[in-house]
Amino acid sequence: MAENPIRFGIIGCAEIARKVARAITLAPNSTLSAIGSRSIDKARRFAAQNGFPDSVKIYGSYDAVLDDPSVDAVYVPLPTSLHVRWAVSAAERKKHVLLEKPTALNVADLDLILDACRSSGVQFMDGTMWMHHPRTQMMKEALSDTTRFGQLRSIHSTSTYAAAKEFLENDIRVKPDMDALGALGDAGWYCIRAILWATDYQLPKIVAAFPAVDFNQRGVILSCGSSLRWEDNKVATFHCSFLAHESMDLNLYGNVGSLRLWDFIIPYEETSAFFSLTSGADFSELHLGWTNKPEEVRVASPLPQEALMVQEFARLVMSIRDFRCGPDPEWPQISRRTQLVLDAVKKSIELGFKPVEL
Amino acid sequence: MAENPIRFGIIGCAEIARKVARAITLAPNSTLSAIGSRSIDKARRFAAQNGFPDSVKIYGSYDAVLDDPSVDAVYVPLPTSLHVRWAVSAAERKKHVLLEKPTALNVADLDLILDACRSSGVQFMDGTMWMHHPRTQMMKEALSDTTRFGQLRSIHSTSTYAAAKEFLENDIRVKPDMDALGALGDAGWYCIRAILWATDYQLPKIVAAFPAVDFNQRGVILSCGSSLRWEDNKVATFHCSFLAHESMDLNLYGNVGSLRLWDFIIPYEETSAFFSLTSGADFSELHLGWTNKPEEVRVASPLPQEALMVQEFARLVMSIRDFRCGPDPEWPQISRRTQLVLDAVKKSIELGFKPVEL
Repeated sequence: MAENPIRFGIIGCAEIARKVARAITLAPNSTLSAIGSRSIDKARRFAAQNGFPDSVKIYGSYDAVLDDPSVDAVYVPLPTSLHVRWAVSAAERKKHVLLEKPTALNVADLDLILDACRSSGVQFMDGTMWMHHPRTQMMKEALSDTTRFGQLRSIHSTSTYAAAKEFLENDIRVKPDMDALGALGDAGWYCIRAILWATDYQLPKIVAAFPAVDFNQRGVILSCGSSLRWEDNKVATFHCSFLAHESMDLNLYGNVGSLRLWDFIIPYEETSAFFSLTSGADFSELHLGWTNKPEEVRVASPLPQEALMVQEFARLVMSIRDFRCGPDPEWPQISRRTQLVLDAVKKSIELGFKPVEL
Repeated sequence: MAENPIRFGIIGCAEIARKVARAITLAPNSTLSAIGSRSIDKARRFAAQNGFPDSVKIYGSYDAVLDDPSVDAVYVPLPTSLHVRWAVSAAERKKHVLLEKPTALNVADLDLILDACRSSGVQFMDGTMWMHHPRTQMMKEALSDTTRFGQLRSIHSTSTYAAAKEFLENDIRVKPDMDALGALGDAGWYCIRAILWATDYQLPKIVAAFPAVDFNQRGVILSCGSSLRWEDNKVATFHCSFLAHESMDLNLYGNVGSLRLWDFIIPYEETSAFFSLTSGADFSELHLGWTNKPEEVRVASPLPQEALMVQEFARLVMSIRDFRCGPDPEWPQISRRTQLVLDAVKKSIELGFKPVEL
């Protein structure tokens, strides 16, 4: 453990908080300092179930965590509809904010959060974990290689899982007052982020949702998809769903190569991951086969991707705390662009699948 | 070789004809009988280059092939704009018709061909070769397995290749008077067929082209894509292009499993092929990995897929010739549905990417 690690508080005991609590413990520059729930009993149970050491303070309210002077940063895994209230509260109390995705119900809400973080000089980052896997960096290098991949022409991504009946009836992600963005916010967020990541965060010009959306009885999206087009006619498509078997595909097609993986959000295994790269392929004589086949590029991960995310966030917080740097502006910008595209998909759906210009 | 094999004539010396000529030779129930070109010199050169035996008659016109009483069936690899004229001519002269894809410029033209075949009692089949690979049948079995794959929810397919400068300037597939459908006809055909194959040839309700089309200066499509939606909200997307690296992806997502392959049109190797099946996957405790990973299902191919196509076509022709069966109605119907969807994509593009109902 580094000296003076960043001390995290967690507000809310969502399932995902278990994973990030573990990550905070694993990251060498951070430590878990406090956990808060609206119910002290729930917080105690959560601490016991996850084997937190006695040094972790347990609070019966979110405010108590935010008021604790020994907390440097908070991780916020609350339902999306509570993000503005609690992320702004945290920023106002000078806590750095690691916010679970989707960041907000819309970009206007997200701007309230980002403005609060900017005013307070605290770091903001969203919880898109796969961004921090070393595979992601390796893929970026492959994509940037003009001789192996060339110019990016199209992208297809999926983020789907077959939710159980219990989830489809009671999970917060299907409740309009909790996570009103449904599958688009929970699963589509990853696809949109992957698409923007691949395009160096250039916003598309046109977003047109597919005329195929499943809603639940309360009007929450259970599955949808969209096409996105850039000025250079690059095109991306994605499909997100609570109604299809687990899939996390990211397929990137350049004019010299193509790159594919099926587990971009949660790698099949924690310690290493791979992607597939096909480069310079042509058809053999008479088109009886291919000259080049896909090659597997495997990347070891020294820490789980969640721990790498926490480590990166804590590193930025340290440089603010210890070196008087300003907050890194890139991560908030990346979140904002993701939210902007997500909003455009939602708007296109609301407009009856009309193309929306960005 | 079977007794009394089906005797094929080929009209036109396109590159693809070399592959199908080889297939006719390899198929045990067929034989190459005649080849015709508008130029007898070109036909002679083609025969010499491909090592045709002396028994193959060489003609300086298409009509001569169609008039040859020793020809039972013709393979037509001519540019799409010539399909109506020569496929109808062939049918009227009682030749069975194996027609290269895209079958026609639109479904009205295709109907002229299908009507002529029906009137003459000759077999019609299009040249979509991968349909005849044993892998295709194996995949259908996997898709139909409710415990391993479940209900089909979404599909994504690509058919792209990075055409050389010479192709983009001079190939018939970029000339409006030859193959006016461009990449949609040449490459998109395969995607549409794959999508229909996966949905048991149910037509989608709505087809909406992506607002991202590249045209050449003569107005021919170089790249495009579309979403398709069925009554049950199943959704499919495809992307076809002459401007991206070789890709032939078919991704099928069910609610219990998913099936993927990257070489569905031309397998990586001629003698065997595989697809990937993931079934019943869930995330492990804390979502730190996956419980089930993709499994490779490998299928040997006794003959190249083109030879299996010719064999199947010749089998149907034999049952007409030797057993007085009627022509098989399935293959023409499959071609017609593919063409209907292709027409709808084209119409959606022409209407400024508006959804088109089918």
